[in-house]
Amino acid sequence: MATLEFFFDFTSPYSYLASTQVETAAARAGGAVRWRPFLLGGVFKATGNHAPIETVAKGRHMWIDLERWSRRLEVPFRRPQTFPVPSILALRAVLGAPPERLAEASRAVFRAVWAEDREIGNPAVLAAVLREVGLDGDALVAAAPAQKEALTSQTSEAVARGAFGAPALFVGDELFIGNDRLDFAEAALRRAAGR
Amino acid sequence: MATLEFFFDFTSPYSYLASTQVETAAARAGGAVRWRPFLLGGVFKATGNHAPIETVAKGRHMWIDLERWSRRLEVPFRRPQTFPVPSILALRAVLGAPPERLAEASRAVFRAVWAEDREIGNPAVLAAVLREVGLDGDALVAAAPAQKEALTSQTSEAVARGAFGAPALFVGDELFIGNDRLDFAEAALRRAAGR
Repeated sequence: MATLEFFFDFTSPYSYLASTQVETAAARAGGAVRWRPFLLGGVFKATGNHAPIETVAKGRHMWIDLERWSRRLEVPFRRPQTFPVPSILALRAVLGAPPERLAEASRAVFRAVWAEDREIGNPAVLAAVLREVGLDGDALVAAAPAQKEALTSQTSEAVARGAFGAPALFVGDELFIGNDRLDFAEAALRRAAGR
Repeated sequence: MATLEFFFDFTSPYSYLASTQVETAAARAGGAVRWRPFLLGGVFKATGNHAPIETVAKGRHMWIDLERWSRRLEVPFRRPQTFPVPSILALRAVLGAPPERLAEASRAVFRAVWAEDREIGNPAVLAAVLREVGLDGDALVAAAPAQKEALTSQTSEAVARGAFGAPALFVGDELFIGNDRLDFAEAALRRAAGR
């Protein structure tokens, strides 16, 4: 099946926006989504790219832009008190979820951060968030350290394939960076699906 | 009349894309465009922002992204041999054009760079480009130095109002950065026009 690879980090608000849209976009195109957590900080470090908030005017514009997008997409959005979000524990924890539950677990974490401003860097909060979608939150949090290598490896793979930011969307070798390129990615997926 | 202020630099390929769309977008919204040349290099310097090509992976992706956009918008696009484009002479020259010809002069320069790969940093080439749309190219090029202050002043104004990249689109105090935000700007213009 034609696949849209969706590389994301919970600290990335544009990844959150994309997380609310990728499944319907892929379904429209006749393809499927592969959810792939990665470390945006690692991507910035490896590529020399900068986070938007490193430039004051860009950071200011980003929060307004995110409000505009959330209104357009009709998804809840709340600026978290803590940003960047300490996301590494959550990224490792969801990587340990059964593969068929990874998408659901990831959406739950995204909502917790970007709609509810919950502190997912806190193990007890994270466990509760995962429990609310029927997963064994305590076990996933406890097993998170075992996913350290897997997370690093997904990050390196994305960088090797050209990623420099998040979300990073791939259809085969074609790379699309940003929630605002999801429509281009959907068109590529449609072609890959032979539609 | 409700106004879309369009700050642009000829070296910015996303400004070129926007230059092919702003007039129709504004007309749809019931407003008008005010064409405002500025110096993107000055904006980067003042804000600490970085050009996409400073990050290798980002630069590589940009050229592919531009091809995708030009196909979607059905506008010609050719990657120029020289990039960044030495645009300061042309920015000053068009600022000296009669106000009612500024848009046309600017579109002619954008086409010369981004569709025809002509060297607008060369005074003779620039004069020819302007002559082709019925302007006195030699006179505008000769008078360019007199626009130095005006160009600097437009750049400072844009920065003071929050711009950090190009194109920078304003509807009143609302700022939209990037060709990919033109649809948001059009919606704001429609509201400003009371539609």
